[in-house]
Amino acid sequence: MIAREELRIETQGRGTYDLSDAVKRAVAASGIDTGLCNVFICHTSASLILSENADPDVMRDLETFMSRQVPDGDPTFKHNAEGPDDMPAHVRSILTQSDLNLPVSGGRCALGTWQGVYLWEHRHAAHSRRVIVTVQGD
Amino acid sequence: MIAREELRIETQGRGTYDLSDAVKRAVAASGIDTGLCNVFICHTSASLILSENADPDVMRDLETFMSRQVPDGDPTFKHNAEGPDDMPAHVRSILTQSDLNLPVSGGRCALGTWQGVYLWEHRHAAHSRRVIVTVQGD
Amino acid sequence: MIAREELRIETQGRGTYDLSDAVKRAVAASGIDTGLCNVFICHTSASLILSENADPDVMRDLETFMSRQVPDGDPTFKHNAEGPDDMPAHVRSILTQSDLNLPVSGGRCALGTWQGVYLWEHRHAAHSRRVIVTVQGD
Repeated sequence: MIAREELRIETQGRGTYDLSDAVKRAVAASGIDTGLCNVFICHTSASLILSENADPDVMRDLETFMSRQVPDGDPTFKHNAEGPDDMPAHVRSILTQSDLNLPVSGGRCALGTWQGVYLWEHRHAAHSRRVIVTVQGD
Repeated sequence: MIAREELRIETQGRGTYDLSDAVKRAVAASGIDTGLCNVFICHTSASLILSENADPDVMRDLETFMSRQVPDGDPTFKHNAEGPDDMPAHVRSILTQSDLNLPVSGGRCALGTWQGVYLWEHRHAAHSRRVIVTVQGD
Repeated sequence: MIAREELRIETQGRGTYDLSDAVKRAVAASGIDTGLCNVFICHTSASLILSENADPDVMRDLETFMSRQVPDGDPTFKHNAEGPDDMPAHVRSILTQSDLNLPVSGGRCALGTWQGVYLWEHRHAAHSRRVIVTVQGD
């Protein structure tokens, strides 16, 4: 059995957006009891992470870390047609994930207690992002 | 066909733990000839990597690299309730993998000659870690 | 349904190699309409990325970034039997991907408009690289 759902996330610029509930709803709606759930983002300047879901400081600290590792306006980058955050957004995507593959068990997404699914928008401007959720199993 | 097995790994603190044999056993036990094997870790302060399996210096050097990139006790991090390695463990997880998806061929996990599956414990204290192995195929 | 194809890529040393067409052909040849396509690299010194496919400067900038983050000849690395790019190649692989999992929709690989699948050779010497493509679905 295969079920598919497409999510559309309207971001308000750089930051993380919690997709956990939307992913869990897609798994529940699929009617699949045991299998896997693939979450895929159709972009190269926003990405996916599986991260701690309880303390908002974690997201703040992730951003602090990444902004330091991949600074906007890096003068060694040539690809900057869309601005100082253009190439850094691609690098940040490469260092994180474009797809996550999560166990489905008992009809539910079997995430750990502290795991949440997040979209990480790396551009400063608002963007409309497409995420495809595919559930495969029995 | 879907087969699932849950592994419990008792870590003795920061370092890598070879899961290759356990994953290979789960694939063999599944009876699946051709398909994919998903390995998923249910935590956000330990992660998975696919790495060189012959020279122990590789694991030592990975740790050297990561400790320099993401130093414990970074004063810019606010999330430190569990100590100086709390937030660094989340960052290290984000920069590596929470799930690996490996081909199964001829009833075996079709890893390359030099590839091993490792759990990377990022916390200094011992932890009990849950890893879910799912094999899908024919 | 499961279909599998093995690609052999002869690299000319460090750099990125576009696999998008080969992956799309494997999906089309599978006859699968809806499902997922797993792309797996059987090595630990070359990796996979999903990246911007229009401006060659992006690949150049990715290499600039990674060479700075993980410099060849790092004196803190012990694993250097194959030269100054030996251990850096493993680190670069760990920071990117060994497997990608892409939606298949309407018999095609449902990549975003600007997404391409690339093999990233991290060694300076030419290598023969094996990539396994698995398509699962209906």
